[in-house]
Amino acid sequence: MPDDPFALVIFGASGDLTKRKLVPALWGLFQGRVLPEPFVIIGVARSEMSHEVFRERMREAVAEFARVQPPASHVWDRFASSLYYCAGSPADPLLYERLGALLKELEKDTDTGGNRLFYCATPPSLYPQIVTRLGTSGLHREKAGWSRIIIEKPFGRDLASARELNRIVSLVFREDQVYRIDHYLGKETVQNILVFRFANGIFEPLWNRNHVNHVQITVAESLGVEARGAYYEEAGALRDMIQNHILQLLCLVAMEPPVTFDASPVRDEKTKVLRAIRPIHPDQVDQVAVRGQYGPGFLDGQRVPGYRSEPAVSPDSRTETFAALRLHVDNFRWAGVPFYLRTGKRLPKRASEIAIQFWGTPHLLFRRTNPSDRIEPNLLVLRIQPDEGMALTFGAKLPGPEINIRSVTMDFRYGASFGGEPPEAYERLLLDALRGDATLYARGDWVDVAWEMLTPVLEAWGEGLAPKFPNYEAGTWGPPEADAFVEREGRQWRRL
Amino acid sequence: MPDDPFALVIFGASGDLTKRKLVPALWGLFQGRVLPEPFVIIGVARSEMSHEVFRERMREAVAEFARVQPPASHVWDRFASSLYYCAGSPADPLLYERLGALLKELEKDTDTGGNRLFYCATPPSLYPQIVTRLGTSGLHREKAGWSRIIIEKPFGRDLASARELNRIVSLVFREDQVYRIDHYLGKETVQNILVFRFANGIFEPLWNRNHVNHVQITVAESLGVEARGAYYEEAGALRDMIQNHILQLLCLVAMEPPVTFDASPVRDEKTKVLRAIRPIHPDQVDQVAVRGQYGPGFLDGQRVPGYRSEPAVSPDSRTETFAALRLHVDNFRWAGVPFYLRTGKRLPKRASEIAIQFWGTPHLLFRRTNPSDRIEPNLLVLRIQPDEGMALTFGAKLPGPEINIRSVTMDFRYGASFGGEPPEAYERLLLDALRGDATLYARGDWVDVAWEMLTPVLEAWGEGLAPKFPNYEAGTWGPPEADAFVEREGRQWRRL
Repeated sequence: MPDDPFALVIFGASGDLTKRKLVPALWGLFQGRVLPEPFVIIGVARSEMSHEVFRERMREAVAEFARVQPPASHVWDRFASSLYYCAGSPADPLLYERLGALLKELEKDTDTGGNRLFYCATPPSLYPQIVTRLGTSGLHREKAGWSRIIIEKPFGRDLASARELNRIVSLVFREDQVYRIDHYLGKETVQNILVFRFANGIFEPLWNRNHVNHVQITVAESLGVEARGAYYEEAGALRDMIQNHILQLLCLVAMEPPVTFDASPVRDEKTKVLRAIRPIHPDQVDQVAVRGQYGPGFLDGQRVPGYRSEPAVSPDSRTETFAALRLHVDNFRWAGVPFYLRTGKRLPKRASEIAIQFWGTPHLLFRRTNPSDRIEPNLLVLRIQPDEGMALTFGAKLPGPEINIRSVTMDFRYGASFGGEPPEAYERLLLDALRGDATLYARGDWVDVAWEMLTPVLEAWGEGLAPKFPNYEAGTWGPPEADAFVEREGRQWRRL
Repeated sequence: MPDDPFALVIFGASGDLTKRKLVPALWGLFQGRVLPEPFVIIGVARSEMSHEVFRERMREAVAEFARVQPPASHVWDRFASSLYYCAGSPADPLLYERLGALLKELEKDTDTGGNRLFYCATPPSLYPQIVTRLGTSGLHREKAGWSRIIIEKPFGRDLASARELNRIVSLVFREDQVYRIDHYLGKETVQNILVFRFANGIFEPLWNRNHVNHVQITVAESLGVEARGAYYEEAGALRDMIQNHILQLLCLVAMEPPVTFDASPVRDEKTKVLRAIRPIHPDQVDQVAVRGQYGPGFLDGQRVPGYRSEPAVSPDSRTETFAALRLHVDNFRWAGVPFYLRTGKRLPKRASEIAIQFWGTPHLLFRRTNPSDRIEPNLLVLRIQPDEGMALTFGAKLPGPEINIRSVTMDFRYGASFGGEPPEAYERLLLDALRGDATLYARGDWVDVAWEMLTPVLEAWGEGLAPKFPNYEAGTWGPPEADAFVEREGRQWRRL
């Protein structure tokens, strides 16, 4: 069955996301001959611009940001001839009239079967208006074809706002038409977590409290906030990374096998994981969560400023740039196994990974020979970036007449095995939405539970006493409290 | 506690083993400062030779065969000054008188504490005489120190001869004084099997019938019989490789965790494995065993002769140069898991490995996306030689928008991690015998059960109709029957 032709409407067409990710991804799919055809893409933004000028801007964007370089001109021309532009404010009802007229005309000329995909790539404050006006204008209606909407993150900034957005969206679209994007889920190595777990007979038997001591999920960035100070001041590490990306990773690691690899069963299981997380009591936030904000420091030998000196950041900002959490998934599989999560900006390096720390052997058979030796328990690391792959650490005998055991590593690297760069996450996700596969998108109930679960921390951090910020130097692994927090339980963060 | 000083008497001092292995190993230990001191080494052989000539011959042997090259002359001189020679026939009682006198004199001068290690490195037909005469001469007696004997393989050529040899040995030595050597057990990678299994928490839970589909053990040689035709005519692949090396490997893979890593508990568990092997019924030998003999063929582009044209081989020889067996270990851990063993000469390459083939996933979660794809079950390979190490094969997602799964491999190589060449097996084993650690030596009951288990095959092959030899070309993986034999059960030999 061939994929459906389509019309894609991108709200926020003059923004960074469109330029850096969406159009380069669409181009990548087109160039690789997997983008369904025929199609039209309509960019919507405030400023007046001709179709031609928009096409030229997108050509520049593709030349700068696309994975597939450079666009051969006749192939590009074919792609560009499907790009259109429609000017107007998302708040203005007249925009939707013009957009409707343009869609109608293009759909007739291009035979897109009436299939429409809307993409909210604007600032989040505009999402409710766009959705509502799509509804009142009737553009969302499924007549000949399907109608879907992709909503960029962040999906709300707390439980109340997320619920309100879900409510507004649900007045216009059915849940199966809504695609809440988290580009992390489109990454090859993230998708591979499920393949690794469920296409291999030998890992699943080990994947539970009997064999796993604890799990560490790290998303470390060496960059600061760069030009995103205004956004970040409102977000912070918990909203920016943990509520979406890291909780999604946790769900992939912890979920039960779904009945099939389809949107409903997979997302059912992910939501079940969140629902099984032990609620955080408002009085105990300090015991399960640590926050930090970077001060000035050194990174790669360069002096870098503190967060409070970054552009568009308040000089007495209370926003956290580092967050660590300890969660418990209280179910039969994971009872008693802590999940330690951490993320931060201006950490010593960029590295995302999931580390499954197994228990040691039940019995130290070889202790006799060298009592000073400690046998390290097995460790499985799923590396998300950089150097995507996985590694299993195990004890082997050091050559020589004694039984000395040293930890060695079996390693697998995607790059070395499959060559080249993996496809961009947005390519995969856009294609999935066009095909009607929401498996890698967040469902409304998941987003709701994720916010609900974090609410006590958000509230404590939002309202409590002013924290002693900055509390870690740029170029270090976060505040000392983050170490104390896991060491209290006899464990240690992995050195990355 | 420092190791004991000792006197070592090598019977068969003019033979290949002494020249290629024993003295180079002793030198390696001395050079690495792990050989206990003081010591004396007395070579015994028929031809008359002065101590000086013997020392010179051993210097040449070390220069040619030792791992540690070249002997710095002042270090060598210290080592060589402890080498002595005593001429005589092992059948001659006067030899033992002369040997006793020499021992007495050297023990007094050198202060070896009366500790004596005898080494039978002669042709096996002489072992009974040596042991018996050591007994009648009283040289074996433990007065001041300990007394031990190392007996080279083969230990008997069938159940009757092995029992007779065990009986003769037991008249002179207690079992704990007897060290039946199988140099395979001294190899680093073979020793590592137990470390791999018992120093890692995650493998043992998988190491049973619930997770393992079958096990393949391969010891492949590309060489023919070389100069060993006369010996090999009497032995054949079953006696030369399976009865000792391969059954030892099987025991290490299949054994239960020993109580401690000491000689008695480890060897108890190994013998238990052999006792659990389902007896081979004389009428069913053809269903569980395949034999072959190589004809002329090509190896590495070179024409090589058939076995029957090798020096000292009968032109109508019935000796097998290839043997394959299917065994079942009938216990709670392994019921229903076949162990396929194979070994042969003039196979396409030299390669020894143990492959643990796991079951596939219980449920093909991803089948929907690409029904033509078959997900390969996990495979763990312990490579003994060459390129010592281990590899775990698992399914990973091929990059791209579909879920296509491909088998990839996590790999670990000893050489890359630990560098340099591993110590020689004989170094380890000699040192163990000097220290009184028999863990890596075969115990009498193990040898007995190993022969008993193979007796139906030996008898069927010894007495049955003349086989259609040669039945495989040099440079191929054995006779077609060897493939048919596993394919009948829906499995395949690994391509190495």
